[in-house]
Amino acid sequence: MTTDKPSVTVLGLGAMGTALAGALLSAGHPVTVWNRTAAKADALVERGAARAASPAEAVAASQIVVACLLDYDSVREVLGTESLRGRTLVNLTNGTPGQARRFAEWAACQGADYLDGGIMAVPPMIGTPAAFVLYSGSAGAFDRARPALDTFGESIFLGEAVGRAALTDIALLTGMYGMIAGSLQAFALVTADGVPATDFAPLLTRWLQAMSGWADGAAKQLDSGDYATGVVSNLGMQAASFDNLHRTADEQGVHSGLFAPLGRLMQQRAADGHGHEDLTGIIELLRKDDNA
Amino acid sequence: MTTDKPSVTVLGLGAMGTALAGALLSAGHPVTVWNRTAAKADALVERGAARAASPAEAVAASQIVVACLLDYDSVREVLGTESLRGRTLVNLTNGTPGQARRFAEWAACQGADYLDGGIMAVPPMIGTPAAFVLYSGSAGAFDRARPALDTFGESIFLGEAVGRAALTDIALLTGMYGMIAGSLQAFALVTADGVPATDFAPLLTRWLQAMSGWADGAAKQLDSGDYATGVVSNLGMQAASFDNLHRTADEQGVHSGLFAPLGRLMQQRAADGHGHEDLTGIIELLRKDDNA
Ligand SMILES: NC(=O)c1ccc[n+]([C@@H]2O[C@H](COP(=O)([O-])OP(=O)(O)OC[C@H]3O[C@@H](n4cnc5c(N)ncnc54)[C@H](OP(=O)(O)O)[C@@H]3O)[C@@H](O)[C@H]2O)c1
Ligand SMILES: NC(=O)c1ccc[n+]([C@@H]2O[C@H](COP(=O)([O-])OP(=O)(O)OC[C@H]3O[C@@H](n4cnc5c(N)ncnc54)[C@H](OP(=O)(O)O)[C@@H]3O)[C@@H](O)[C@H]2O)c1
Repeated sequence: MTTDKPSVTVLGLGAMGTALAGALLSAGHPVTVWNRTAAKADALVERGAARAASPAEAVAASQIVVACLLDYDSVREVLGTESLRGRTLVNLTNGTPGQARRFAEWAACQGADYLDGGIMAVPPMIGTPAAFVLYSGSAGAFDRARPALDTFGESIFLGEAVGRAALTDIALLTGMYGMIAGSLQAFALVTADGVPATDFAPLLTRWLQAMSGWADGAAKQLDSGDYATGVVSNLGMQAASFDNLHRTADEQGVHSGLFAPLGRLMQQRAADGHGHEDLTGIIELLRKDDNA
Repeated sequence: MTTDKPSVTVLGLGAMGTALAGALLSAGHPVTVWNRTAAKADALVERGAARAASPAEAVAASQIVVACLLDYDSVREVLGTESLRGRTLVNLTNGTPGQARRFAEWAACQGADYLDGGIMAVPPMIGTPAAFVLYSGSAGAFDRARPALDTFGESIFLGEAVGRAALTDIALLTGMYGMIAGSLQAFALVTADGVPATDFAPLLTRWLQAMSGWADGAAKQLDSGDYATGVVSNLGMQAASFDNLHRTADEQGVHSGLFAPLGRLMQQRAADGHGHEDLTGIIELLRKDDNA
């Protein structure tokens, strides 16, 4: 098969790496794959991918190398002894901003042009318009790899500060885990009353959609530091109805520990004299400096 | 002014009661209002509402009485000495299912036909298609009050079990508070790096929208009790990347206590041998019986 699309190596064929390699194959890129457990490559090889016998062979096969493993330690372990001279290394493994910065230094020493990334999608979304991937680090690496990266979803470059993609990724995941924790607690409450979760889910989705404008309003308050103008749901009222979350959990035989920390912060902020303001102000209690 | 629309009394003119009375006025209902702090009625009286001098006068003025006060205790205090014989009492105050059941018993003794409700909207949404209100209790009361109630938003009747609206309301609020807690933590992380909250908000909204299908998939797993089929993000991988939420918070000088309970539940569930399953299974740890 001849193609003018650049060849790409994918290291790691878990659920996500498999989806990434699949998207590259679908778009016509020559793809070389390696995974610690070799059998996970079988289906991709059947679709035309080349199987590398070792990380060294995999890295040698393509100028663009995409890594998607469990964590930064496993990437370091896998790449540890390979030369990366002249390679564009795109690391899509989940990590912290600090890990990304330290890894970028190491990659530079190995001669690689380094791009760090965070995938905002679950594997079935890869290659669909719903997926987006955040990148930061070398702008040259981003430009060079971009035709390949665009096969995963929308590519969003956040600048050369290499930790920015990881920070934004973790922040978005944090938002999602909040939504998931709240939703699980909600499901526990209603199913304890015999309501099927599938009956409740459409109401939950509708309500979260109805409230999805919350972030925009909160952001304006956060940037201005003014939590007291245009308040439609004051913290005092919210703290009062928040107690009902705990009481309802008790009534339904459900633990409410997931929500204890938020309840404590709401009460503390109200007790500090901010009951007439918006809930948003509790961000002050999340910042270590302001909470000394 | 003559109108064939039934007259309605609104007790409580906080942010929400004011919005409810406003929607009724806009739709042409004769409206009588009462509030502990009388001045809050001024703007509504200017728009045509009648001001009652006491709760007794307010209750006497209309067959349909809507209460929206801080909590059930304040409703009880306000209505405590009034006769409700022949009245349709619609209580839209936030409370627990148990409070709703006890209040319904009391209201029945006072001779009222009782409907309990939960408002799924913030005040500016009242009277728009984005608002919906959950009701449970007397079907007759719902039918009778419905033309008035429909002015608030979509009316959803959940059946005669009077605690069901409060339970569903609290469950939906729980979901929302999860989303809000996650979003506040996310804002704290990125603003610590100098990113304006208003730059980050659109990404957050987009990501939460992209993940809004989560509840549907989770509901199917919850109803079947099978957390192991079709897993795209296994709990073991998620528990590993969850640690990065705490580490990133540390790096950014942000407290991560809001997320400590979820992290502990994920680790416990993974340690119990469910690392290959979906995260959804941690609901088992929220149920007191299953966690004894
Ligand atoms: N799945 C998602 O929803 C999702 C979404 C966004 C981002 N991510 C991120 O994508 C990355 C991969 O996730 P995934 O869902 O693909 O996880 P996964 O299905 O659990 O796969 C983990 C991968 O890491 C490999 N691995 C683990 N430890 C290793 C080591 N010491 N040496 C070599 N290889 C090692 C595994 O190899 P074996 O096959 O040999 O075990 C496998 O290829 C993670 O950082 C995750 O946070 C995932
Ligand atoms: N705002 C929202 O976003 C929202 C959304 C959904 C549901 N709700 C629910 O709607 C209800 C009212 O909320 P809100 O936003 O209107 O709250 P709010 O603006 O704080 O108003 C509270 C109301 O309760 C009255 N009140 C409090 N204690 C009282 C007492 N002991 N006796 C008589 N009146 C008393 C207040 O009277 P004064 O004016 O004299 O203080 C005021 O009318 C709450 O149950 C809330 O959970 C609110």
